[in-house]
Amino acid sequence: MHVLGCGSALPTLRHYASSQVVEVRGKLMMIDCGEGTQMQLRRSHIRFTKLSSVFISHLHGDHCFGLIGMLSTFGMLGRTAPLHIYAEPRLEAMLTEQVEMFCRDLGYDVVFHAINPALSAVIYDDHSVSVTTIPLSHRVPTCGFLISEKPTLPHIRRQVTDFFGIPVSQFDNIKNGADWITDDGRVIENSRLVEAAEPPRSYAYCSDTCYLPDLHLLLKGVNTLYHESTFGDDNLQLAEKYHHSTARQAATVARDAHVNQLILGHYSSRYEDEQVLLKEAEAVFANTKLANEMDVFDI
Amino acid sequence: MHVLGCGSALPTLRHYASSQVVEVRGKLMMIDCGEGTQMQLRRSHIRFTKLSSVFISHLHGDHCFGLIGMLSTFGMLGRTAPLHIYAEPRLEAMLTEQVEMFCRDLGYDVVFHAINPALSAVIYDDHSVSVTTIPLSHRVPTCGFLISEKPTLPHIRRQVTDFFGIPVSQFDNIKNGADWITDDGRVIENSRLVEAAEPPRSYAYCSDTCYLPDLHLLLKGVNTLYHESTFGDDNLQLAEKYHHSTARQAATVARDAHVNQLILGHYSSRYEDEQVLLKEAEAVFANTKLANEMDVFDI
Repeated sequence: MHVLGCGSALPTLRHYASSQVVEVRGKLMMIDCGEGTQMQLRRSHIRFTKLSSVFISHLHGDHCFGLIGMLSTFGMLGRTAPLHIYAEPRLEAMLTEQVEMFCRDLGYDVVFHAINPALSAVIYDDHSVSVTTIPLSHRVPTCGFLISEKPTLPHIRRQVTDFFGIPVSQFDNIKNGADWITDDGRVIENSRLVEAAEPPRSYAYCSDTCYLPDLHLLLKGVNTLYHESTFGDDNLQLAEKYHHSTARQAATVARDAHVNQLILGHYSSRYEDEQVLLKEAEAVFANTKLANEMDVFDI
Repeated sequence: MHVLGCGSALPTLRHYASSQVVEVRGKLMMIDCGEGTQMQLRRSHIRFTKLSSVFISHLHGDHCFGLIGMLSTFGMLGRTAPLHIYAEPRLEAMLTEQVEMFCRDLGYDVVFHAINPALSAVIYDDHSVSVTTIPLSHRVPTCGFLISEKPTLPHIRRQVTDFFGIPVSQFDNIKNGADWITDDGRVIENSRLVEAAEPPRSYAYCSDTCYLPDLHLLLKGVNTLYHESTFGDDNLQLAEKYHHSTARQAATVARDAHVNQLILGHYSSRYEDEQVLLKEAEAVFANTKLANEMDVFDI
């Protein structure tokens, strides 16, 4: 996961508005696209052309004002592959109008997929990855995104299959669970022929949201959780007022969901040094990290 | 004049999209507002609150995609003074819709002034400054802006007025040209009582445009000219194709208009080092400078 921006609504000289790119099974998926995202994308050396989709959590400017500039630039760079945008339906009309006014003769299709942030639903699904919405609670309709790899078939133990002279043409069957029967009728059990694949990974992005005590129920088995931590304990009341979370609350969600790793972000501009947020979160959930622009996290 | 961005349509790591702030007689006027302008404004330490107006040259994204983010941020910062936007009428509907969707309860008025880029007309006028459109020729309707100070009254020569015992109550009359008659009937001519004020300055912004051989006729008496120089001689054909100018053409306009100073900008991303553009311009007009982000030019 590449962090392009992890600031909150007020831009600072330290943080850009929200945007991330998740690299999963050769695909690049962007989550949120605040102003300046295209510059950050360039800075990150991520290949623009490999970006297939953009997921927008909610219609606040710091999560989507960078879209039109990025679409326009992709056009100038000669993109031809469609770009899929998943967002609340209200964004489509506005974006379409902007594209018509500013991006005449766009050489690729912008395919809009309307999502309902109030539901937990699979909004993207292919043979290797799925994306599911996570209903959140903010001042406007908002959802997070759960990006899940699908299990892959086990790996063939080549030493064993070679030993029994099993032809490559049988590997698909074996990967799918078949035993092998030798010429003299001996059954070689499947478990000897294969080795389990790496377990599928999953990543959840939850921003922006107030603290949701039951959110962890939707995050079972998640490896890495990015949860907004706009404020620290010192501003708990502001967090409640503006439907944001504190770092401690983010850590509580991570702890209750038993994730492996928590990444904090969406910092209020009032924190010159986010170490105070990290410390408050670590008191509840040890494996917490601070997001920073250009960071790359393994899930 | 503060340069916030002087790149062209494709963003690079070296240049931001077009935006400038002109400081004149205590007012701050912005010209163009590409993506990232609000971040550059913050970087420049210009006081957001003093910005009174934004002039948009044309409806290409690299000249206006930063508007909505800046408007939104001004709202969050508690702005109450109206912000005046001068642009083609088509921008108003779109911007109004964006403000309604993204900036509920904006605490200040965005006052839209429709301009006609095809005419040379005074679009702003107060007691000390006027702004006039300069018709340009680009792929979409485009105009430049001429910002002109008005002449100020001459300064009183205090030594002379004290010598003749002239009361302060008469200074306004004297500044406006009155002579002084002493008690014994002697006439002290006005020219002895006052000293001419600094001559009014003017600044012209011309971007984007193809080379216009007659443009200099609208630039008479201009002190400083900012003229786009997207390309060098090596890409004269591209300049013609995309209705842009070369550095040499910009310098030709500056020479023919007899300005004091030429500033180049709106560089194509293909130039890693703009010195080549500077050299080609200097061959035609010596007092040429390259704009760079965060540069401040005296007019």
